[in-house]
Amino acid sequence: MKRKVTKITESRAKAPRAALDPATLCPVARAASVVGDRWTVLALRELFSENHRFEEIQAQAGATPQMVAARLKTLEAEGLIERRVYSERPLRHDYHLTPKGEAFYPVILALRAWGEAWLKTPKEGRTVDFIHRTCGKPAGLGTVCESCGKPLKRADLIGTFNPTYQAERDNRWAAFKATR
Amino acid sequence: MKRKVTKITESRAKAPRAALDPATLCPVARAASVVGDRWTVLALRELFSENHRFEEIQAQAGATPQMVAARLKTLEAEGLIERRVYSERPLRHDYHLTPKGEAFYPVILALRAWGEAWLKTPKEGRTVDFIHRTCGKPAGLGTVCESCGKPLKRADLIGTFNPTYQAERDNRWAAFKATR
Repeated sequence: MKRKVTKITESRAKAPRAALDPATLCPVARAASVVGDRWTVLALRELFSENHRFEEIQAQAGATPQMVAARLKTLEAEGLIERRVYSERPLRHDYHLTPKGEAFYPVILALRAWGEAWLKTPKEGRTVDFIHRTCGKPAGLGTVCESCGKPLKRADLIGTFNPTYQAERDNRWAAFKATR
Repeated sequence: MKRKVTKITESRAKAPRAALDPATLCPVARAASVVGDRWTVLALRELFSENHRFEEIQAQAGATPQMVAARLKTLEAEGLIERRVYSERPLRHDYHLTPKGEAFYPVILALRAWGEAWLKTPKEGRTVDFIHRTCGKPAGLGTVCESCGKPLKRADLIGTFNPTYQAERDNRWAAFKATR
């Protein structure tokens, strides 16, 4: 007999949002209460990089499974991500951004622009170069395309990793798999 | 005899930056390691709102003095803020954004835009309305002016608080002073 798979995802994504904090009307404070955490930012970065599985997120964030699980649970409760079943036997979920999560991308781009400008040495070079698919030209740093001026969405960007950064990611994944 | 005042600020602002994390080339990860914390974001929000004193930051962030002190210390060590002496007897400092701190403003604007769009009920209304001094028109939400398309800097914005938010801030300040 085939076991019925309960899709937990949808019901959780519609749960009331804890972020509607009645104590403050400030959108920055509300946003910070949802995503104002280093590991949450790294989990979102991975989801925007099309890494959807728990262990990929854990490996690249360099966090414990407990830390990652807690952040993903909050992001799901707040409606930024949803779980999808990708295997029924054994039952396996992965994580995907919802429209609310996708809408967070300008914050990631703004953090990236600030980090590139102020937290890098000139020798290190830019970590990811993006081409804006919409206009076919370099997107630059920032939340709007430096070539055409349109707001940037993740789906419209073609990224190329700096080889040093690609090696860093490959090494993290290899080190993670070696401990399993 | 007049006591010599040691200006601690400058030497600390030039301290080596812990954020140049050799473990990763990712600017988002480096940025998150500096500012990926709810209370840090709130402290920066207050500094961008021209609230420079420790107790103003503490009152509006709603944090303990220890929490605020730890965040300000990190922000100073990372070169985003500097302490300035505003009274010699008694010796008193306040906190000001450096160019590196000012450059963080697009992240605050991106958080604000996302929070306004996704963490508010329609009834609540926008918390702060900005006029872009440069073009004289509404700046809108986002990191570039919705009227003229230029990147927004804090100094070029004239903000008007929603009356409910102004009352919320006044109440927090009154409650804070009542406990002193």
